[in-house]
Amino acid sequence: MFQINENYQKLPGSYLFSTIAKKVAAYSQENPDKNIIRLGIGDVTQPIAPAIIEAMHKAVDEMGNAQTFHGYAPDLGYDFLRKAIVEHDYKARGCQMEADEIFVSDGAKSDSANIQELFAENSRIAVCDPVYPVYVDSNVMAGRTGVYDPKTQMWSDVIYMPCTAENNFVPEFPKETPDLIYLCLPNNPTGTTLTKSQLQEWVDYANKAGAVIIYDGAYEAYISEENVAHSIYECEGAKTCAIELKSFSKNAGFTGVRLGYAVVPKALNCNGVSLRDMWARRHGTKFNGAPYIVQRAGEAVYSEAGKAQLKEQVAYYMRNAAAIKQGLKDAGYTVFGGVNAPYIWLKTPEQMNSWEFFDYLLENAGVVGTPGSGFGPSGEGYFRLTAFGSYENTVAALERILKL
Amino acid sequence: MFQINENYQKLPGSYLFSTIAKKVAAYSQENPDKNIIRLGIGDVTQPIAPAIIEAMHKAVDEMGNAQTFHGYAPDLGYDFLRKAIVEHDYKARGCQMEADEIFVSDGAKSDSANIQELFAENSRIAVCDPVYPVYVDSNVMAGRTGVYDPKTQMWSDVIYMPCTAENNFVPEFPKETPDLIYLCLPNNPTGTTLTKSQLQEWVDYANKAGAVIIYDGAYEAYISEENVAHSIYECEGAKTCAIELKSFSKNAGFTGVRLGYAVVPKALNCNGVSLRDMWARRHGTKFNGAPYIVQRAGEAVYSEAGKAQLKEQVAYYMRNAAAIKQGLKDAGYTVFGGVNAPYIWLKTPEQMNSWEFFDYLLENAGVVGTPGSGFGPSGEGYFRLTAFGSYENTVAALERILKL
Repeated sequence: MFQINENYQKLPGSYLFSTIAKKVAAYSQENPDKNIIRLGIGDVTQPIAPAIIEAMHKAVDEMGNAQTFHGYAPDLGYDFLRKAIVEHDYKARGCQMEADEIFVSDGAKSDSANIQELFAENSRIAVCDPVYPVYVDSNVMAGRTGVYDPKTQMWSDVIYMPCTAENNFVPEFPKETPDLIYLCLPNNPTGTTLTKSQLQEWVDYANKAGAVIIYDGAYEAYISEENVAHSIYECEGAKTCAIELKSFSKNAGFTGVRLGYAVVPKALNCNGVSLRDMWARRHGTKFNGAPYIVQRAGEAVYSEAGKAQLKEQVAYYMRNAAAIKQGLKDAGYTVFGGVNAPYIWLKTPEQMNSWEFFDYLLENAGVVGTPGSGFGPSGEGYFRLTAFGSYENTVAALERILKL
Repeated sequence: MFQINENYQKLPGSYLFSTIAKKVAAYSQENPDKNIIRLGIGDVTQPIAPAIIEAMHKAVDEMGNAQTFHGYAPDLGYDFLRKAIVEHDYKARGCQMEADEIFVSDGAKSDSANIQELFAENSRIAVCDPVYPVYVDSNVMAGRTGVYDPKTQMWSDVIYMPCTAENNFVPEFPKETPDLIYLCLPNNPTGTTLTKSQLQEWVDYANKAGAVIIYDGAYEAYISEENVAHSIYECEGAKTCAIELKSFSKNAGFTGVRLGYAVVPKALNCNGVSLRDMWARRHGTKFNGAPYIVQRAGEAVYSEAGKAQLKEQVAYYMRNAAAIKQGLKDAGYTVFGGVNAPYIWLKTPEQMNSWEFFDYLLENAGVVGTPGSGFGPSGEGYFRLTAFGSYENTVAALERILKL
């Protein structure tokens, strides 16, 4: 009789955002008259920018014509997109990356879940706490995390690096040496980040410890402060210790379009085995490229018109972030984030725990947020609101919260 | 110091089609004047059908409008597509599947590579030989295949089920009991298939042995004979032993559009643990849905206009298959397939091995095919030609081959 991968059975409950979606759906069904505003899941609301829409229409037409039809894409992505990425995301910031170090994918979620496959089964992972759940969950499925303690909500074999108000959301170097260090900067969910010099310390640490940093830069477009790096490769020595994952979801509204990329530098290797070559082999074997139409959409992100339109889109969301942050602050809430990221991280009022505040907010204000504890044990007592709603909904949600 | 997944090092050489692409690119560079006809990789050449193009334009417009914009798709796929699949691919053929047993993905290659994750690390896999390389390669990466013997080109822990002219390309039940049985029917690369009653025997065998059949039905649309099943669920008892993987690449030309789906029946479980629930958890954690635009394209495949246009497209390719098959046969070649699948599987002439014939054909006829040995040891001495070229190219390639 066949046997299953028992690691799946270790996962407690369902994926965080699936749980929230189900909870909200149940509440909606019971209260069909209630108008719910969703500032929970980090999904965008603004339409795709005109320059990108135009590029997609053009690509669709190409697909309908025998002379310009595109079948299988190159495994690792079309050159036109990889070159645009190198030029605009790296060269323009002083980072010399090569096109064949860029791997186009169907999104950073897939990449951040799949990247662990390159590493040994007994690799020790370190994560910021709280953090995007996929890093830990994908390692649970691979059997790397040991035993889960429901009381502490911690895995025995995961190194947690608490990021809370107490340490100003700056993770400390762990006591045990990790093999893989997941850094999501600017951070989801706290909306906080590190300065470039703080990040440089992590790069130095990883090179010294022989660890690999998995650097999730999904929110890079929201960085507003000068002393924050837009890519880990701005730090010296990062090419020998870091893989960078990037998303088009948040800078270009591609949550429903699906596009991302991973950067695996040629200089990154383990006893002479190139991680870049391993990732190329994985892409070639387990993936068949992102859609042509979507890769053309990605190219348009870097066009002059695309860049100008997306700058406005990012500003639109950051105006929401500023409104939420200021509004809650004025009302006496303790709030973080919202300066270099589209997330507001707040302390739950009156000693409520995260899920209590989730229910409280849903039932009394009709506003959906995300319980901080869903992102890790150190998220307990915190709550995330996203700036990705429409401005009208954001202001309305804020008013409702302030009336409580 | 971090360590890598050593299983990757066991993979001999690169992914088959990457190797071919590199070989052809090198030849083209050395012989820029040679006009090469590619009947190698199973990539389609005909443009996307008008009904689908129209649906994609409409979906692109929706994405550009705040009122109709779509962000994250539901993890498992949009209801409109899952319902269309249930209706047209199953109900119309007498199979009662439910929409929540259908998992929309970015293609059958990803699904067929990822599905092994659900099973225990020591699962024993059985594959037809020759077969699509992804089944074995993804299991190599997961450490399930033991040691590779370069002489026999076989893995110590894989059960090979030879399918050759000698057994009429019908695999025999293996002597050892497998946990997972990969069946690709109609088969890639041989173009042959099983009758429905032969498939029923495999379903009965799997249920009795406690094995799971991973049924890759990517070429289903090309079935022309009455006694061949279009879905494994046409066989009695398949819901307790089979996962079906389907692709839109070959029936609708989506190789560059990227869409597929997996069917994991609720009745399939291991000691009460539902594989459907495990796959749902994997999708929710490691994948973020296929693009909205692409799922709308998939829906259009099932529209009246879409169905009519695709019927013509399939007929177009099958005319190519018939032309190649008859032409080669008349010239004295021994040929198989081409009746229920868009592949022609031929015996290499004059005792050439598969790669020798690859080089011979490339250098003397400027035609690219795929060496049979690339699909497994029993493919040695065979060669695959695809019917996915344009009619003009197919006829031209055939003429060149016949002149040799």
